[in-house]
Amino acid sequence: MKERDVVVIGGSAAGLTAALTARRHYPSKRVLVVRREEQVLVPCGIPYIFGTLKDPEKNVMPDAPYEANNIELLKADVTELDRDKKLLHASAESVRYDRLVMATGSLPIMPPIPGFDIDGVFAIQKDIDYLRRLFERLQAAKDVVIIGGGFIGIEFADEIKKMGNANVTIVEMMPHCLSLAYDDEFCVEMEEVLASRGIAIKTAAKVEQIQGRDHVKSVLLSDGSEIMADAVILGIGAVANVDLAKKAGLRIGLTGGIAVDQTMLTSDPSVFACGDCAEKISFFGGRPSGLKLASIAQMEARIAGANLFGITRQNYGTVGVWSTCVGDFALGTAGLTEAMARQHGYDVVVATVEGPNRHPGGMPGMAQTKMKAVFEANSGVILGGQVRGDTATGEMINAVSAGVQKRMTVEDIATFQIGTHPALTASPVVYPLVNAAEVAISKMRGRV
Amino acid sequence: MKERDVVVIGGSAAGLTAALTARRHYPSKRVLVVRREEQVLVPCGIPYIFGTLKDPEKNVMPDAPYEANNIELLKADVTELDRDKKLLHASAESVRYDRLVMATGSLPIMPPIPGFDIDGVFAIQKDIDYLRRLFERLQAAKDVVIIGGGFIGIEFADEIKKMGNANVTIVEMMPHCLSLAYDDEFCVEMEEVLASRGIAIKTAAKVEQIQGRDHVKSVLLSDGSEIMADAVILGIGAVANVDLAKKAGLRIGLTGGIAVDQTMLTSDPSVFACGDCAEKISFFGGRPSGLKLASIAQMEARIAGANLFGITRQNYGTVGVWSTCVGDFALGTAGLTEAMARQHGYDVVVATVEGPNRHPGGMPGMAQTKMKAVFEANSGVILGGQVRGDTATGEMINAVSAGVQKRMTVEDIATFQIGTHPALTASPVVYPLVNAAEVAISKMRGRV
Repeated sequence: MKERDVVVIGGSAAGLTAALTARRHYPSKRVLVVRREEQVLVPCGIPYIFGTLKDPEKNVMPDAPYEANNIELLKADVTELDRDKKLLHASAESVRYDRLVMATGSLPIMPPIPGFDIDGVFAIQKDIDYLRRLFERLQAAKDVVIIGGGFIGIEFADEIKKMGNANVTIVEMMPHCLSLAYDDEFCVEMEEVLASRGIAIKTAAKVEQIQGRDHVKSVLLSDGSEIMADAVILGIGAVANVDLAKKAGLRIGLTGGIAVDQTMLTSDPSVFACGDCAEKISFFGGRPSGLKLASIAQMEARIAGANLFGITRQNYGTVGVWSTCVGDFALGTAGLTEAMARQHGYDVVVATVEGPNRHPGGMPGMAQTKMKAVFEANSGVILGGQVRGDTATGEMINAVSAGVQKRMTVEDIATFQIGTHPALTASPVVYPLVNAAEVAISKMRGRV
Repeated sequence: MKERDVVVIGGSAAGLTAALTARRHYPSKRVLVVRREEQVLVPCGIPYIFGTLKDPEKNVMPDAPYEANNIELLKADVTELDRDKKLLHASAESVRYDRLVMATGSLPIMPPIPGFDIDGVFAIQKDIDYLRRLFERLQAAKDVVIIGGGFIGIEFADEIKKMGNANVTIVEMMPHCLSLAYDDEFCVEMEEVLASRGIAIKTAAKVEQIQGRDHVKSVLLSDGSEIMADAVILGIGAVANVDLAKKAGLRIGLTGGIAVDQTMLTSDPSVFACGDCAEKISFFGGRPSGLKLASIAQMEARIAGANLFGITRQNYGTVGVWSTCVGDFALGTAGLTEAMARQHGYDVVVATVEGPNRHPGGMPGMAQTKMKAVFEANSGVILGGQVRGDTATGEMINAVSAGVQKRMTVEDIATFQIGTHPALTASPVVYPLVNAAEVAISKMRGRV
């Protein structure tokens, strides 16, 4: 029987980061990661296997950090967790732990749609062999239907289109793609970009049935229309993988994740949880949050890993910061959209500004950046921002995220000290975030 | 005689932003900008006239914002300011003001070097006719010497090289180019990039004399070496343009700028000043600061413009956030470098991390990002950061700036909620700013 100070179950973004953080904060402790997979995929990189990387092998997370950081790696499936004995069983091994971190991730949602188990219907399993089969299937596909127009759905659509020009259709239940993360005007822009790349989009469309006998043949919508399909991809989200946690009697939260407090401790004082398997609360009011992102997972893992033998960090709730792109057209979001803020009950003032990302506008690489910022009307605190722009959008949104996390006010932002450069950013005179704050101030004073 | 509620002298980044801010915050006031220039140049865009835009006309700031925002524009030289009568004389016009904003900018430093007035020696005047002459001269130039290896110097060097492959040499007095803004290891990298583009660099080199009779012929260094030159550019900095302010008896500060308090008010309660002409203090300890940047100018202008008829904003001192680039190789800096922090007397812990800006590393556009973060050793507060990376560096440095301005600690940053994307940013597991914080924490605990 092995004995380890720290055992982490799971080796994706959360598990690896928790182990690295434990190593860093507790250099003398013996740290072991137990994971099921032979090779772990970069989770957000999965769509890019298809049209860009062209090989699942190129999307594998290197195992080098384990050896480099003196972290032991055991490739085995944990089948049982005995919390009384602080013992887990993984294949032929038994491991005793002092502190345990659950980082068991999530599983794709399988929808209650008749036909989802027909050959040719694929969920997005984080499994290299599964994705190899999907890759092969898609190489021969002529008609691909993607069910779900979230960021995974649209990224898959564009990547599959790049593979061999199949007919690609996104079917989305909501009125717009991406509507859980962006206000409509941003969603519409992305839909236009997808359409310009030859991708068909059916929004406000419900799938009635996936049809076919030996192989998938078509997708039937509730309006009676039928879309031909020799491959169907389900991209409708993920649920926390809590099988082991449940079996071990750990408390489960309202959204189905492992219940944790703000230190990432579960109902067992020796067991922490982080990442997609852990229950989340919102930064905005503390209600349960269904967001699952690798960046949230790593933040939680840094908290769990640091707190293992003495609490030093606290999770103030998920802000929700992420970006997506199709070609050079990128969208970024941090915090609440206008629609979400209103749903949360906030009285909001919003400001949208648009302008070139270079100065003067004739500089190479010029593209129009659009920024929408959402402020609480009375305090002026920024609740969120959305950016549409070029490939720098992914970094731009992180300055917005800083504002949200530090609860900067519209006045803080109006006098924010930005760095600008003709070849890299907008002009200081009209820098989007600062400019949006000034517009919001005018609106707050009822002057616009 | 005109009478205006607000008069702004100067129409570059500070003047225009002050006028726009006044308009926004005081919609009923009559706002007038008086400026000398027929056309105003984008100040930071000036180097890019030469190899990229290829025409000074393409680097002109549009005057459209004046009409669009109901701001009056008078193109005239202010020759006299009578503060007792709150009256100024500009060419044939006299204008009475209620509030005045001085935004008279800066003038290039003319060094005490014999020969600086020979034909063919150019300072960097923000004057379109002057730059047209320089542009013509450089088109025919075979040997160009640039005195001063700050960001203006290196940007000019690269742009002139692009024009027609002249021999371009930068002469810098300090041991490295850019050393007032970056630690040596970053400066060295930029020097290597410049060298790879065929630009000669002489550091730790003092100019003894510029030589030539009718036209410039060479530059003589104090080590006796001589560099052939048919054009010489002086890029050694700028001094506040305070001629009018001095004549009018406004108080002048320690570094030669118009003295202002933290509300941007001068020694006259009706007169504000902002931008390059105004005295600055450092965010770090409040000592006088010699920094002059368009982004600082606009921040000060937003403070001055908002405070004209009632103080609402305060200047907490210049952080110093900016970036520069040569091709796709970009450097960004916010706050103090390690060397500057030590000079200021801080006990610092620094962390440098490096990794790919995409995940997995095989994604297109992959480049290595290097980040160095400087923390105060006891409080853990971030004092500054430097980034070397691709064109997103200009936005990345603004998240660092937010950290510095909000005095985020190493723990705040270690659990910072970042947005990441395979095609746009580094992996969340090793995101540079967050990773640097973790490295710094380990160092602070004496564990590395």
